Amino acid sequence: MTRLTLDQAHDLAKSILLHNGFSLAHAHAVADTVTAGERDGCASHGLYRVLGCVASRKAGKVEAAAVPEVFDQAPSIIRVDAAGGFSQLAFQAGLPLLVDKARATGIAALAISRCVHFSALWVEIEQLTEAGLVALAFTPSHAWVAPAGGNRPVFGTNPIAFGWPRPGREPFVFDFATSAIARGEIELHRRAGKAIPEGWGVDAEGRPSTDPNVVLDLGAMLTFGGHKGSALAAMVELIAGPLIGDLTSAESLAHDAGSKSSPYHGELIIALDPRRFLGEAAGQHLERAEQVFESIQGQGARLPSQRRYEARGRSREQGVEIPEALYNDLRALLE
Amino acid sequence: MTRLTLDQAHDLAKSILLHNGFSLAHAHAVADTVTAGERDGCASHGLYRVLGCVASRKAGKVEAAAVPEVFDQAPSIIRVDAAGGFSQLAFQAGLPLLVDKARATGIAALAISRCVHFSALWVEIEQLTEAGLVALAFTPSHAWVAPAGGNRPVFGTNPIAFGWPRPGREPFVFDFATSAIARGEIELHRRAGKAIPEGWGVDAEGRPSTDPNVVLDLGAMLTFGGHKGSALAAMVELIAGPLIGDLTSAESLAHDAGSKSSPYHGELIIALDPRRFLGEAAGQHLERAEQVFESIQGQGARLPSQRRYEARGRSREQGVEIPEALYNDLRALLE
Repeated sequence: MTRLTLDQAHDLAKSILLHNGFSLAHAHAVADTVTAGERDGCASHGLYRVLGCVASRKAGKVEAAAVPEVFDQAPSIIRVDAAGGFSQLAFQAGLPLLVDKARATGIAALAISRCVHFSALWVEIEQLTEAGLVALAFTPSHAWVAPAGGNRPVFGTNPIAFGWPRPGREPFVFDFATSAIARGEIELHRRAGKAIPEGWGVDAEGRPSTDPNVVLDLGAMLTFGGHKGSALAAMVELIAGPLIGDLTSAESLAHDAGSKSSPYHGELIIALDPRRFLGEAAGQHLERAEQVFESIQGQGARLPSQRRYEARGRSREQGVEIPEALYNDLRALLE
Repeated sequence: MTRLTLDQAHDLAKSILLHNGFSLAHAHAVADTVTAGERDGCASHGLYRVLGCVASRKAGKVEAAAVPEVFDQAPSIIRVDAAGGFSQLAFQAGLPLLVDKARATGIAALAISRCVHFSALWVEIEQLTEAGLVALAFTPSHAWVAPAGGNRPVFGTNPIAFGWPRPGREPFVFDFATSAIARGEIELHRRAGKAIPEGWGVDAEGRPSTDPNVVLDLGAMLTFGGHKGSALAAMVELIAGPLIGDLTSAESLAHDAGSKSSPYHGELIIALDPRRFLGEAAGQHLERAEQVFESIQGQGARLPSQRRYEARGRSREQGVEIPEALYNDLRALLE
């Protein structure tokens, strides 16, 4: 393993992206999120994603110097055209106006369109909870997941993320795929020649399958939670697709045309301001919300964000460790 | 079984509520929703609920002539104080302003507070999709459900509902509890002396239990979908509780003080206007959304709302059938 301070990790990511043709603004925005992923123990959204960024650029699937354009669409809607660039910069471009609008009208939506997307949503959610807002985020991906009762992919892994600001504490944040499991997890089983648990996927006839090759190549992945998870996945397709004028997961996969790049589509973020809902009583009700968290943690159950914050504390003190092979692959992109 | 036309069902519900002291406005609003439930094959939200309405009134747990008060809270927020009455009339009072605000600003929220709640959320969602809006609704209930990894109730059954308008067709609507199963379903197993399936609940030590008595009286119900469903249940507690200045499921259960009345708390409804997101292109993108539904139904999978619409068609032609015992119990409330 190779140990890096968080600054070193950020510099490495930024240098590679700059060296491979990305604009400084994109290099910085992407370095921020992959460093946050690595820092919080989410290696799946950490430094290794930089390899994918460079590969997407080489495949001609991302605009390396795209300048996001912000539109004041309606009193409570901001639209950002990412112009084919990564989502991170588009989110940053829309964030100030999203915060302003949520504070002014009580609830506001940010619709990012035409972005290449691989970011963890919690990184964005935390920027809204820092502003004292409650936040939701949704994005489709590539069509890999069958609806409940079906056998053919319709949905992406379609994550849903939520954040709640906690006065004086790290926010309550969750961010999960509506698929039963990440696609990468099934890929890992395939490489290891191992069967996958039941419930992750089906074969071409819709029967449960534990063969990763069958699920990935012939059948489909499944959603979490049966017909309820399937309903949520459909909701994400709709509100982070046609509602914002952007591609569904099926359309994104067709656009990819086998290049195996990051999905190209849109993202919907909703922000709500507790102070506009509650006025001066906001502080008192946010304090009352703490009882929910105490009831969960008081019985030994975990909050969804807990493990991430523990990793964050460690990484700030000790830096992060990445496999030496990954470090070498990353360094090679600087040549 | 006793067969009733939809008009007869509505008249029966309304007459009972009037006879038992409810105001005409409440009697009408409640009769609308229980008739819709019966019509759509959701007997659990049908005429039998009228028994509970009268019982809640006798227990002093609902204001029978409450007049909801509407507050124009912020450019995109409406607040309705239900003043201790049933939620249905409060929703109706807030609906016109919610539609206006969503159309004016693009996204708007309706926060109903201090309501007694037993309504199916899809009845409300459909009134928003009829106005061409996309809609979400959330409400807590009584604390019966443990968080993932826990053994003590924190969450209510905390339903989430969603609606998407389909031009020229019935809307895409789902409405499900974030608990693994309805509490009533476990009650039915207890009455029948039958074990419940694994996954519905735990005992007092947090171990899986198939004994309905243990789950209902000593342990707790579980959410659907493991830690993901548990995260969603927590979200509902927060955004339809403290965010709108109203009770959590734990506080609602404490307020009930063993009377076994309907929960008393709040509800959050969010409406989004596709025309404000998309302008003149809205029609084209709503048409594109139809491909998602075709991909689901084209492989033989069902849409969440399909069964309800089939029942609706039958009920409009043939009326509804309710058990004769229920009919007699209802008639007795007219004496």
